[in-house]
Amino acid sequence: MSETSLADALFTPRSIALIGASDKPGVNNSRTQVYLEKHGYQGKVYPVHPTRDTVYGVKCYPSVKDIPDQVDHAFITTPAAVVPQVIRECGEANVPVATVFTSDFAESGDEGARLQEELIDAAKKGGVRLIGPNCMGVYNTDPPATIAPNSVLQLPTLNKGNLGVISHSGSLTGTFISRGQARGLGFSKIVSIGNESDISVAEVGEILVDDPKTEAILLFLETIRSGDAFAAMARRAYAAGKPIIVYKLGRSEAAQQFTASHTGAIAGTDAAIDAFFRHNGIIRVDLFETLFELPLLLLGRKPKPGKTVSVLSTTGGGGGMVVDSLGRQGIDAVGIPDAKARALQEQGAVFSNGPLIDLTFNGTNPKNTAMLLNELLAMPENDGVIMVVGSSAQFNPENAVKPFLDLAKSEKPIGAFLVPTAEESNQLLTDAGIAAFRTPEGCADAFRCCLSWQPPVPVPHAAAFDADGLTALVNALPTGTADEESARTIFDALGVPQVAAAAAADASAGLAMAESVGFPMVAKILSPDIAHKTEAGGVELNIADPDALATALSAIQERVTGYDPSATLNGFLLQRMERGLAEVLLGYRVDSLVGPTVVLGAGGVLSEIYGDVAIRIAPVSVETAREMIDEVDGLAPIRGYRSMPKGDLDALAEAIVAVSNLARLGGSRISEAEINPLLVKPEGEGVVAVDGLIVTDA
Amino acid sequence: MSETSLADALFTPRSIALIGASDKPGVNNSRTQVYLEKHGYQGKVYPVHPTRDTVYGVKCYPSVKDIPDQVDHAFITTPAAVVPQVIRECGEANVPVATVFTSDFAESGDEGARLQEELIDAAKKGGVRLIGPNCMGVYNTDPPATIAPNSVLQLPTLNKGNLGVISHSGSLTGTFISRGQARGLGFSKIVSIGNESDISVAEVGEILVDDPKTEAILLFLETIRSGDAFAAMARRAYAAGKPIIVYKLGRSEAAQQFTASHTGAIAGTDAAIDAFFRHNGIIRVDLFETLFELPLLLLGRKPKPGKTVSVLSTTGGGGGMVVDSLGRQGIDAVGIPDAKARALQEQGAVFSNGPLIDLTFNGTNPKNTAMLLNELLAMPENDGVIMVVGSSAQFNPENAVKPFLDLAKSEKPIGAFLVPTAEESNQLLTDAGIAAFRTPEGCADAFRCCLSWQPPVPVPHAAAFDADGLTALVNALPTGTADEESARTIFDALGVPQVAAAAAADASAGLAMAESVGFPMVAKILSPDIAHKTEAGGVELNIADPDALATALSAIQERVTGYDPSATLNGFLLQRMERGLAEVLLGYRVDSLVGPTVVLGAGGVLSEIYGDVAIRIAPVSVETAREMIDEVDGLAPIRGYRSMPKGDLDALAEAIVAVSNLARLGGSRISEAEINPLLVKPEGEGVVAVDGLIVTDA
Repeated sequence: MSETSLADALFTPRSIALIGASDKPGVNNSRTQVYLEKHGYQGKVYPVHPTRDTVYGVKCYPSVKDIPDQVDHAFITTPAAVVPQVIRECGEANVPVATVFTSDFAESGDEGARLQEELIDAAKKGGVRLIGPNCMGVYNTDPPATIAPNSVLQLPTLNKGNLGVISHSGSLTGTFISRGQARGLGFSKIVSIGNESDISVAEVGEILVDDPKTEAILLFLETIRSGDAFAAMARRAYAAGKPIIVYKLGRSEAAQQFTASHTGAIAGTDAAIDAFFRHNGIIRVDLFETLFELPLLLLGRKPKPGKTVSVLSTTGGGGGMVVDSLGRQGIDAVGIPDAKARALQEQGAVFSNGPLIDLTFNGTNPKNTAMLLNELLAMPENDGVIMVVGSSAQFNPENAVKPFLDLAKSEKPIGAFLVPTAEESNQLLTDAGIAAFRTPEGCADAFRCCLSWQPPVPVPHAAAFDADGLTALVNALPTGTADEESARTIFDALGVPQVAAAAAADASAGLAMAESVGFPMVAKILSPDIAHKTEAGGVELNIADPDALATALSAIQERVTGYDPSATLNGFLLQRMERGLAEVLLGYRVDSLVGPTVVLGAGGVLSEIYGDVAIRIAPVSVETAREMIDEVDGLAPIRGYRSMPKGDLDALAEAIVAVSNLARLGGSRISEAEINPLLVKPEGEGVVAVDGLIVTDA
Repeated sequence: MSETSLADALFTPRSIALIGASDKPGVNNSRTQVYLEKHGYQGKVYPVHPTRDTVYGVKCYPSVKDIPDQVDHAFITTPAAVVPQVIRECGEANVPVATVFTSDFAESGDEGARLQEELIDAAKKGGVRLIGPNCMGVYNTDPPATIAPNSVLQLPTLNKGNLGVISHSGSLTGTFISRGQARGLGFSKIVSIGNESDISVAEVGEILVDDPKTEAILLFLETIRSGDAFAAMARRAYAAGKPIIVYKLGRSEAAQQFTASHTGAIAGTDAAIDAFFRHNGIIRVDLFETLFELPLLLLGRKPKPGKTVSVLSTTGGGGGMVVDSLGRQGIDAVGIPDAKARALQEQGAVFSNGPLIDLTFNGTNPKNTAMLLNELLAMPENDGVIMVVGSSAQFNPENAVKPFLDLAKSEKPIGAFLVPTAEESNQLLTDAGIAAFRTPEGCADAFRCCLSWQPPVPVPHAAAFDADGLTALVNALPTGTADEESARTIFDALGVPQVAAAAAADASAGLAMAESVGFPMVAKILSPDIAHKTEAGGVELNIADPDALATALSAIQERVTGYDPSATLNGFLLQRMERGLAEVLLGYRVDSLVGPTVVLGAGGVLSEIYGDVAIRIAPVSVETAREMIDEVDGLAPIRGYRSMPKGDLDALAEAIVAVSNLARLGGSRISEAEINPLLVKPEGEGVVAVDGLIVTDA
């Protein structure tokens, strides 16, 4: 085993073996060697090929084992079938890390997945750490080590810079460089992480957190692996003052993971991933270009959530687009308070005030602009400042940029939208540390990201609840969907008030215990096989007296048997009929990527139809639960809407916390739990759970 | 009056007077003259200034009246106060059109509005047509006549091209040129329309429709004036095969026009404007850059609505972003059917099939790409084709563009997203007539626009309804909010079934007529002063018998009097209590910009909370009404959701048509009409209006 650290072996290797090397121009097997030299790699390069003597004039070895030197990093482009053997040889040669460019592994089906297993096994046994397979390589700009065949390296130079990049997509590493450099941005280190078979995004992220040359980390993600390590890395990055900015695919995914409950259907993985990012202080951009436009808005600043921005403009149309785009993101453009505006104008400032602060033709000069920008940055009425620059950005870049020169260090975020095509101004602003935007929508997306950025959410203090007792109850559940009575017991133990009810094994037992529940009453079938009881005809409402109950129970039995003759029927649940001001859905789901989540939605079919839910990583605090209540649009009526009566939001928040506490059971078998509906009564009267569902793993 | 046509005077004037001319470098008064010469204007230029002898060496006249030649076009930059007098002189000199650059007219407050009135009056009296005031000027590229001081004219050349532009924002005319030319686009004619005091967007649009050099019309709009003329122009443009593409500000406008009904609050002007655009075959882009990226997707093609696109890619990450962005716009990416894919691969095509069709490294060559693009264009399973081009777009533009060269005329829309920064490829594609996209979101926005583009909606045939009788009823209404009984009469006459009901002047009359309505019953206060009856305590539900009715009527009277002691009370409305599967809101509103509209929304507070409404220009056909029903998410339950019973959608569609027919009353006094709720009963059982509201103008 080598003594080189993983970070050094990855990014500053003293020597690189190119296994599968070739000097046929333009193929992937040959380009890495060309690009390493072109971009100034100072270490040793050892081509490896079974039959060649030299590659591009450099001595070639038949195997990595034949190289008479310590190899710090192997870059592998051989056919997939031989990669495991190549890795074994790397192990024998004490190579600490290998980057596997070759594809046709797990991404390509079962056979590839098997080969990837073999690859991982070989790497583990040989003590070789792996980047990839199916990746584009690893780039360091300072000192230069471009261990990648990406044709973007045809660019004459590679900017040094402070942005670190990790990407699931290999080709996009080239796009980062191409688009970044076109804006004057530079990168510290870039890693194409490929299939993430060994070294994860989280592990490279940890290295970037420790890298003094990296000040922000940009991620292009297709999925999340190792969620816990990822979260830990993100929290450490936050603590180190290095924002993590993510573009993640999968927002449109129609096919949500199949689940028995509504919670799964309405809070699919992408919403859970959003919650995960926010929970860990990670910023997710909406537009791809925001990856490039956002960093300078965040660097050197702390999260400071806000809802208002002041927009200063040399052009009404350009400024109007920014104000409009901000408004669609929920951010208000605010002008200068009238008295302050008059005072400034008396002191000689030239502008026309309003939601858009217009410099007018006479005010468009660097001195007036700089003065106003400084005033706006000092103004408590806004949370950020945007300057919209018209034609001067194109034809007079120095003048356009001058007003910003001392503002890069402002505590408050400041950026510039350049209305014409103005690459030179864009670069000058970037060099000055000012975020520059090419489109009004990108500007608004970046300010949304910046003003909704929040620190990682601390794990809330444990509530005083009986974890052992609950675990015992949970362990007693059968695998699969628990019946309603079992679910009642669990929710009751968590501390969620349950409707008055009794379970009866059959109709006559039901009639006998009706008095203890009380009329009017609801009767429901008890069956582990029927998730949607209403659809199955398994529910009767508004049962007024014992005669009606007898009729109802036999009708239910008949309908349910017709609906699913094979369903196991465990009798009936009788419940007191309750009324609330609103019905909500309160759910818990262990997401396959990000772990336990809690979901609040408007009741009935609304949460599904409108996707109107709030989701958080569980467990949550009461404060977070209140945030969730505020986020669900359909709960507006019980938050105080027109003259409608308010619901008991305190009790609702407590119920959210209680359900989220399922996450405290550690290796709990519960994969999903859902109360639907939970009735919210008027202020001071509490909440009551009417129906519940719990799904357990084996 | 001159015999020059307005089009010629605007765009190909033989002579231009620059009134307010100067040769002080860099000011607006001087630049137009410089730019006219620079960009090759071949006509005569006459500077006008009261005291100068020459301007830039050209003889200067004290007044336009002193010019010894017919002046076709005057460009005015004098101070605002003297502009009316200047226009009078233009009239005396028979100048057919004047473009007024000067600002401080209606856009700047009451005094400016007064001055603008004076200006319009002077122009009318003198027979002078006006562009502006407060505008940037008029640009023609062929033959060149850049009658504008915009600093974008510092560009060395101005591309000729086929795009016409009309913009409310003056500065954005420069942005069109700047951003358009950076993409290799060219313009035919550009007009900064300013305050639109005389010549409207519609009138310039008509000229562009007739202009053989203009093939598409781009609009940057802040508002809509002369809605009827605008609609007529758009329909003529459509008939001429010239798409109209609009970016309109105002999508975020929080402050909606105040109205007494919900219809106004939930279907604000921007939604009405959307409906207006679709109604007239106009395409509205969401992103600013789509203005530049969309035209080549539309030119030479007819609208063909669709929901699917095939995406061919050289890069998984870039292709994934496009597929994801399309999905968010409701467009599915579709692969090649399996059998077809196998057949193609057997014939030597190289690709990996799936929702993203991946060329793979080996398939990335012009021949294979061109073959696949042709196959995809011929494939009935998609409605459009997108090629995602990776690094070759940056480093091998000719190869990247080659596969497209014969595809510009394809019937099916085709475009290319260039993943890296690739300006040269972008220009080559543009030159070849292929739409090129810089961002995945822009690509998706453009395809959404293209695939939702529809021909203008024909005015539906008149239903057989008694327009004269209705007009008489409407004329009998008082000004303001009509009481519920009057509203019932109007809706009944339109053909919307009304709940069984009777109006009673007081409580004892109510008790006397209760039997004719039937129990259970609802009682409501009748008052023209109370729009929201429930809030005022003016409603009692579920009244079971005459005793309960007596109690209810006195309770209502007491509560309403407490709520608004000054309200005029006209007695009570008694209604049979009805039940439906769903409640909907059905409204009619005469929008101040686009005229009569009809609105359908989910009932209760939902349409307001979720903004879940469908809106169309009225009157509508039954087919359009069915489209509206399909658009309202909250109506999913009655469209057939899980096993829930379907509502009577035919009857609902008829009710929508009936309410929309209010638009057929011509100069109707009704500004708003709303049924809320309209109950939708099960299939075959119809709909019934329970409550209604009508607002009339004087």
